[in-house]
Amino acid sequence: MHEIGRSKRARQAFAFDDVAIVPTRRTRGVEEVKLDWRIDALSFGFPIIAAPMDSIMSPDTAIAMGKMGGLGVLNLEGLWTRYDDPEPLLAEIARNTDEATVTRRLQEIYAQPIRAELITERLNQIRAAGVPVAGSLSPQQTAEFAETVEQATPDFFVIRGTTVSAEHVSSDVEPLNLKEFIYRLDVPVIVGGCATYQGALHLMRTGAAGVLVGFGGGASHTTRDVLGISVPMASAVADVAEARRDYLDESQGRYVHVIADGSVGRSGDIAKAIACGADAVMVGSPLAKAAEAPGRGFHWGAEAWHHELPRGERVHFDQVGSLHEVLFGPSRVADGTMNLVGALRRAMATTGYTEVKEFQKVEVVVG
Amino acid sequence: MHEIGRSKRARQAFAFDDVAIVPTRRTRGVEEVKLDWRIDALSFGFPIIAAPMDSIMSPDTAIAMGKMGGLGVLNLEGLWTRYDDPEPLLAEIARNTDEATVTRRLQEIYAQPIRAELITERLNQIRAAGVPVAGSLSPQQTAEFAETVEQATPDFFVIRGTTVSAEHVSSDVEPLNLKEFIYRLDVPVIVGGCATYQGALHLMRTGAAGVLVGFGGGASHTTRDVLGISVPMASAVADVAEARRDYLDESQGRYVHVIADGSVGRSGDIAKAIACGADAVMVGSPLAKAAEAPGRGFHWGAEAWHHELPRGERVHFDQVGSLHEVLFGPSRVADGTMNLVGALRRAMATTGYTEVKEFQKVEVVVG
Amino acid sequence: MHEIGRSKRARQAFAFDDVAIVPTRRTRGVEEVKLDWRIDALSFGFPIIAAPMDSIMSPDTAIAMGKMGGLGVLNLEGLWTRYDDPEPLLAEIARNTDEATVTRRLQEIYAQPIRAELITERLNQIRAAGVPVAGSLSPQQTAEFAETVEQATPDFFVIRGTTVSAEHVSSDVEPLNLKEFIYRLDVPVIVGGCATYQGALHLMRTGAAGVLVGFGGGASHTTRDVLGISVPMASAVADVAEARRDYLDESQGRYVHVIADGSVGRSGDIAKAIACGADAVMVGSPLAKAAEAPGRGFHWGAEAWHHELPRGERVHFDQVGSLHEVLFGPSRVADGTMNLVGALRRAMATTGYTEVKEFQKVEVVVG
Amino acid sequence: MHEIGRSKRARQAFAFDDVAIVPTRRTRGVEEVKLDWRIDALSFGFPIIAAPMDSIMSPDTAIAMGKMGGLGVLNLEGLWTRYDDPEPLLAEIARNTDEATVTRRLQEIYAQPIRAELITERLNQIRAAGVPVAGSLSPQQTAEFAETVEQATPDFFVIRGTTVSAEHVSSDVEPLNLKEFIYRLDVPVIVGGCATYQGALHLMRTGAAGVLVGFGGGASHTTRDVLGISVPMASAVADVAEARRDYLDESQGRYVHVIADGSVGRSGDIAKAIACGADAVMVGSPLAKAAEAPGRGFHWGAEAWHHELPRGERVHFDQVGSLHEVLFGPSRVADGTMNLVGALRRAMATTGYTEVKEFQKVEVVVG
Repeated sequence: MHEIGRSKRARQAFAFDDVAIVPTRRTRGVEEVKLDWRIDALSFGFPIIAAPMDSIMSPDTAIAMGKMGGLGVLNLEGLWTRYDDPEPLLAEIARNTDEATVTRRLQEIYAQPIRAELITERLNQIRAAGVPVAGSLSPQQTAEFAETVEQATPDFFVIRGTTVSAEHVSSDVEPLNLKEFIYRLDVPVIVGGCATYQGALHLMRTGAAGVLVGFGGGASHTTRDVLGISVPMASAVADVAEARRDYLDESQGRYVHVIADGSVGRSGDIAKAIACGADAVMVGSPLAKAAEAPGRGFHWGAEAWHHELPRGERVHFDQVGSLHEVLFGPSRVADGTMNLVGALRRAMATTGYTEVKEFQKVEVVVG
Repeated sequence: MHEIGRSKRARQAFAFDDVAIVPTRRTRGVEEVKLDWRIDALSFGFPIIAAPMDSIMSPDTAIAMGKMGGLGVLNLEGLWTRYDDPEPLLAEIARNTDEATVTRRLQEIYAQPIRAELITERLNQIRAAGVPVAGSLSPQQTAEFAETVEQATPDFFVIRGTTVSAEHVSSDVEPLNLKEFIYRLDVPVIVGGCATYQGALHLMRTGAAGVLVGFGGGASHTTRDVLGISVPMASAVADVAEARRDYLDESQGRYVHVIADGSVGRSGDIAKAIACGADAVMVGSPLAKAAEAPGRGFHWGAEAWHHELPRGERVHFDQVGSLHEVLFGPSRVADGTMNLVGALRRAMATTGYTEVKEFQKVEVVVG
Repeated sequence: MHEIGRSKRARQAFAFDDVAIVPTRRTRGVEEVKLDWRIDALSFGFPIIAAPMDSIMSPDTAIAMGKMGGLGVLNLEGLWTRYDDPEPLLAEIARNTDEATVTRRLQEIYAQPIRAELITERLNQIRAAGVPVAGSLSPQQTAEFAETVEQATPDFFVIRGTTVSAEHVSSDVEPLNLKEFIYRLDVPVIVGGCATYQGALHLMRTGAAGVLVGFGGGASHTTRDVLGISVPMASAVADVAEARRDYLDESQGRYVHVIADGSVGRSGDIAKAIACGADAVMVGSPLAKAAEAPGRGFHWGAEAWHHELPRGERVHFDQVGSLHEVLFGPSRVADGTMNLVGALRRAMATTGYTEVKEFQKVEVVVG
Repeated sequence: MHEIGRSKRARQAFAFDDVAIVPTRRTRGVEEVKLDWRIDALSFGFPIIAAPMDSIMSPDTAIAMGKMGGLGVLNLEGLWTRYDDPEPLLAEIARNTDEATVTRRLQEIYAQPIRAELITERLNQIRAAGVPVAGSLSPQQTAEFAETVEQATPDFFVIRGTTVSAEHVSSDVEPLNLKEFIYRLDVPVIVGGCATYQGALHLMRTGAAGVLVGFGGGASHTTRDVLGISVPMASAVADVAEARRDYLDESQGRYVHVIADGSVGRSGDIAKAIACGADAVMVGSPLAKAAEAPGRGFHWGAEAWHHELPRGERVHFDQVGSLHEVLFGPSRVADGTMNLVGALRRAMATTGYTEVKEFQKVEVVVG
């Protein structure tokens, strides 16, 4: 604990950049490493989820992600459920290279209402491809559209916001009672972001199958500048991993998955997230660099088009290869943007681990 | 405590940039948040004060600030009390884009004497608009012009300097006895800057209604380079907040407001200042970005035109919108320069707080 | 120990840049300092080894290094054992200044198979020059080519990889049993990289004459970005030096040399490595600046051309002088790139040390 | 203490940039502050010494410094004692703006031998002007030229090197026995640099009137890069100040002055040096910005022209005003390069101190 001043104490918190993984006395062949991830009734080939962001996930890329053994989550309050054909808008956004005005244009484009029938249509399209189906809503929209989502029977319903609590109080609108809601819902729920032990523990008690740790923001969210709020991710994940353990005991056996969601820009961050205790990692910006990304190299999160207090910027990345190459390589660059799955496999092999669950125990250092 | 060397120990001190606010397990609707701030006999809509700097506060902008529910403090030893019409000078300063020579020109412009009748005139102009009236003097000028100020019966008399102590010793001039002075004065006094528990406690004992924490310097004051003196603000505010608590007990109930004054460049800093214990925040540079700012995008503090030891530089900002938009949004940028009031409201809602006083207890982390 | 979060603790680890050597109360004349380094049956004039990287070590430069009293290690799975005449390829690489495509070209060039007869030829060429002979293989290639190397009877066989453990498990290929292998081998082995006390202790138990500490990567390896793995070198060396001490006791007298291999970019880093406990230092990038360097100013490690997950970039340096000048001066630059041996000598003299072994005890500070 | 690794522990050390001075509950008028500094038989108007560097001190500027109440030390092994008229060389150095080749040219220029008669002539010239006389030699040259210096009866003889110890061992040359030497010498000696409690204590025992703390290098010495050696100055000064206290007791009353020599680039650093325990401060680069500086805006130390291992670079500064303005203002810039004396005065007044000796106790923070 630091003493900020006589009336205030504070913990030190650590970002992924502050920590590094340390080799052990063993090494393993990469072929020994098992990356499959099982949550609820489903199994995936690797513990990487594509974040529900319009710049990376369309019905088509969610299907592609699923066919490669991963999980892609479609944003159910983004362009694909506001417009019959969002492609011209995605193209327009990509043509607008003036960062000074693009925020205003995003605010306009996303002012269009969400249409329930498009939610149904998009989820059905993904289901028809024979891959796992997952869609996300913010807590604000969940009450209105949850029934629509439920009827589409996705494999996962993701409730994702900057900060989602089990106890939200509002006098304007009847707040969502997460616990009752999830109990009644016939679909496994993944919910977050959360950033603290207490916050996560309460989310786990709602019956969620997984919790998202972090703010889940885009690559350049500015929540720290605008609100003063920040969640150094290594600490947040390590805190929530302890909540998972305590809740496992308290619930006599319910294992709630901890999913790191934010600040994952390079393949090394995926390994670090697991090393800090995550079961899986939700990624955004690395997938924005794939040739198939709907954003055409541009990337933004929901916080970038908030109507009165935008807290993120649209950013541009160079495209590095196909989605398959981004996930499985071969890589032709040395910056951690290609072969995400191969890099995780190699990080584990190099440090002597073969199981993701075991790799949560690998030693890390600060420095 | 750190050991600097065998003969010297030092506390670690923290700036706003070193700390971040952490969400709790609760969230609130933004409409639940109450921001009103009551000090002495007056109430304000939000705990943000415009600093007495010529680049942001003219009689007109002080009136505008008041009409929007805030408090604008006019600098009573700036251009408005040295010149009948300072507008041509403000325009000249804005045209002079040569930072190498502008310090010298500022020194000349501010060498003009202060005129008591202009103090009276400017304060009356603000009063006539029906908004709260506040003017500031430095400790050096307070003795000479205090009577003039008092007769204008402002709502607050602000005594503001780089470092103001309750005990100033000088052989040249009869130093101001702050305690006697404030006792005799018929106007509530806000006084500072101070930076330590002891310094603040002594200022509280003078009978001040509020103390300013920090150096109150412009956006680019260089006191650390020139004098070696620096006050990391998160620590200073947290120290002074403890002095407030101890003085409250010692005085059997006098609550002296702690007002952070310095290093507040973005909306997130306002939230952090309160999180560290401030009751209100005095801002400068964020308001220099308003279209109405007298500085026309340029910004400087009194330390920038000191006649023999200037300790700050004039800086330039892009204008982002009207004063109303800077305070209340809607924001069209993601960098914490617009919608200051909305950002504070959202920071509190996101972390589950509805009262500013309660928000002083929110958890912060270092990192 | 830091608490990353409730479920994870971490040591602080330090890089060479984080530490500095402190003078003592004594100084020595530079002529008093003895730098000779004795390992196994050989003595060298100074404890600096040239790393087995194609950009710095050819048979010719290995010979030159030996003639000056040092040890140059030839990479036995680089261009010199894949091609009869690698010079045209080295020239081509140097002409290709497009860093975006050079990784792909390196991948192609190094896809050519290693030829056993070239291993023999190159080692014989060095031996014929009458200097110490040392060649390196990665653990992956050691089994296949070890016999070839052994028959060439080099003075040292270096097994060098990013992370080499005494216990490697693989189901695809029969892993190298280092302990058995080294026991049977008739050549002293230097093996690494390793980064931890435990890892090093196990390598020492294999019978190695020396262990390499660090990743041994090129000047801009990106293992931290790609894999999340990093080894702050000051801490790694200081940990492994303790393993040397404990193994010395456990083995009743086997002194295994600790050789820092990585993050040595300037002459000051060589002094710091020894100050942290190293017996000798393997250097790469400083030698890439020599006029004779085969890389012609360009520099890359094996990790830069990995076929599916490159983890390093080729970099370019200005050439500063001849290899002799780089090692012995006189220096004409003040950045720690010339007169490496003279700088080590002076660092020891300035702090009052005359023996490398004693200099391992010099005080260092963080800051 | 930090644990670097299992075999090595290290103190944290702090540079001036790491610390800041904190106001107290008192303030003082600047006219209350007394800056005079008394050492041995002499008194000075302020505790600032001009460093013996050719780029700032010629006989003329040493005289000017003295006439303004300060102490200027002439480098007795620089250009003024190697050449009858160094002005053409100083002009040539200033015309050579190619930093890549200037080191080599400096090496040539300084290869010229030192002439004893010029030492005498230069010191006499300063004495004739009626100001305090001080000249410096490195420990290497002291034996040869000490008698010459002594016969010129300067007020102070400064022995200044990167690291000077009371116990220097050399087999090549008979090392200087500092203790005997100083005892026999009829001139008060100031000696350094030193950086540690032990090193300083031993220097104090030689009978020196003052010790220099730091490396005394030029503005851009690169000792850390080249040798790995570094002395974070706040810690070094605070350590040596404790040696002063302990030696005062041990010697039953000899007060040896602690003079910070290095890393003083801005006026704030002067205040910080005293705050950490220094009695006076030796400055280089701030005076290189004076119009009269012989270096014509260029600045270099002896380490920049070392014949085989240069450890510093020549740097260029903009000239900001006359030497008088640099020392006493009025300042027209806000970066701590003008009005050095006024800034120290104001730093003390702002924090409530009137005596330099008392100011050594002012609180500092890390941050």
